[in-house]
Amino acid sequence: MPRLRRGERMVVLAHLLMQAPDRLHSLADFADLLGAAKSTISEDLALLRAACERFGLGRIVTSPGASGGVRFQPHRTPSQTRRLVEGLCARLREPGRVLPGGFLQMTDLISTPQVAAELGEVFATLFWDARPDCVLTMEVKGIPLALMTARAFNVPMVTIRREGKITDGPSVSVNYLSGSSQIVQAMTLPLRAIPSRARVLFIDDFLRGGGTARGVHDLMREFQAEVVGIGVFVETERPADKMLDRYLALITYRGVGASGEALVGPSRWIEAL
Amino acid sequence: MPRLRRGERMVVLAHLLMQAPDRLHSLADFADLLGAAKSTISEDLALLRAACERFGLGRIVTSPGASGGVRFQPHRTPSQTRRLVEGLCARLREPGRVLPGGFLQMTDLISTPQVAAELGEVFATLFWDARPDCVLTMEVKGIPLALMTARAFNVPMVTIRREGKITDGPSVSVNYLSGSSQIVQAMTLPLRAIPSRARVLFIDDFLRGGGTARGVHDLMREFQAEVVGIGVFVETERPADKMLDRYLALITYRGVGASGEALVGPSRWIEAL
Repeated sequence: MPRLRRGERMVVLAHLLMQAPDRLHSLADFADLLGAAKSTISEDLALLRAACERFGLGRIVTSPGASGGVRFQPHRTPSQTRRLVEGLCARLREPGRVLPGGFLQMTDLISTPQVAAELGEVFATLFWDARPDCVLTMEVKGIPLALMTARAFNVPMVTIRREGKITDGPSVSVNYLSGSSQIVQAMTLPLRAIPSRARVLFIDDFLRGGGTARGVHDLMREFQAEVVGIGVFVETERPADKMLDRYLALITYRGVGASGEALVGPSRWIEAL
Repeated sequence: MPRLRRGERMVVLAHLLMQAPDRLHSLADFADLLGAAKSTISEDLALLRAACERFGLGRIVTSPGASGGVRFQPHRTPSQTRRLVEGLCARLREPGRVLPGGFLQMTDLISTPQVAAELGEVFATLFWDARPDCVLTMEVKGIPLALMTARAFNVPMVTIRREGKITDGPSVSVNYLSGSSQIVQAMTLPLRAIPSRARVLFIDDFLRGGGTARGVHDLMREFQAEVVGIGVFVETERPADKMLDRYLALITYRGVGASGEALVGPSRWIEAL
């Protein structure tokens, strides 16, 4: 292989690292692949780390020693996060988004891959220390956010269904009280979907009463799995008394304004970043 | 801003281009952002193009002239595609994947973000010339594939639901004959979900009789939208007579082998690449 220039090596390194976040790569593997000395790769990585920091592309983390190596960690700075959330709030205030009953139409936004990918990196940044083994969501609208969060953690995404499907094999179901409509609903998950003692991060689009998230806790208990975090895109201000204490929302929906627009703003967690 | 080295510029350029496939960037914008001359950026891009080609990372496409610029096109070579599909076939042959009734359990595979992302790039490569404005899927299991395909095209993803939801606003529904179970089912989509005269690419996880895809054609007619392609992850060999002629599958499922394993292999489209 003809010798590569530094810029070419850096692009390939960036690609390999960013495609599989949190995976440990050894300098020796990189040196083999790129036909360069380990000391050269080390210099490439130092430059890459600086460029990533300066342009807010995420973090290149190196760990020393025989078992060491280098990994990529998606990271959104507080100012990047606030800018993203404020931009999305502006979109949510657009006329026509509030439907009868006060429902907020936001599926188009969170199904835009670019938006979902950025939000996934935000959730990964906020929940990084929770180190989930998988990202869980409830069908249907939260799936894009959950998938992109799972991508940023490089872990599988698992979708809870309302009803079991014949294509799923043996399943576990629990009933739960929906916080918003106060009716009993079911959620079901195939037995093999979650390994025992898994650490799961629950990501959803919307949280009103918190009944669904509470049901997820109950369901995970049946799997001997631990819910290590709950992240939602939009929470409602009311009821103030949610059915669970610990969750994190990006946007707070406070009701409908005088001209029919949604009253939304960055949540208290985002304000405090 | 202190002057950047070539490697740093190339990493930032690669990131900006790859984050938003098919978006045209001008050299002048890049020059401004990176504090370099346009001729320098032009050299950076030439090196980036070569590195992307050599390592199979996709294509950097430049268009000349006043309205010209540079864009990124995700691209999987035939050999990359065959390797990916063969690896997934091996996973689908694992014991325990065939459920009673011959149903093939594959949700875990296509919900793994890395796998979905690679398949999305494969679909984008295969359907690139169709130039869709949006990627459409039917809830639930196809969503990860559709989202990652939409990401590779940098267009929105739209999910058809079985039932309308109050949070969706006014909707259009059609009934269709499910090819596999020969029962009448409904599919529904909010009126505002698809702009008139949109070019839509339908992506789904599984195709047996083709009834769903046929229903999608009917539904899109109501939106004055055009189905410019249909791509599925797995098709069944039987019935040989599908309810539609034009679609593309990556994997063909031929039935269950002597020891209960799925008989799967690359489809004729993949074989012909």
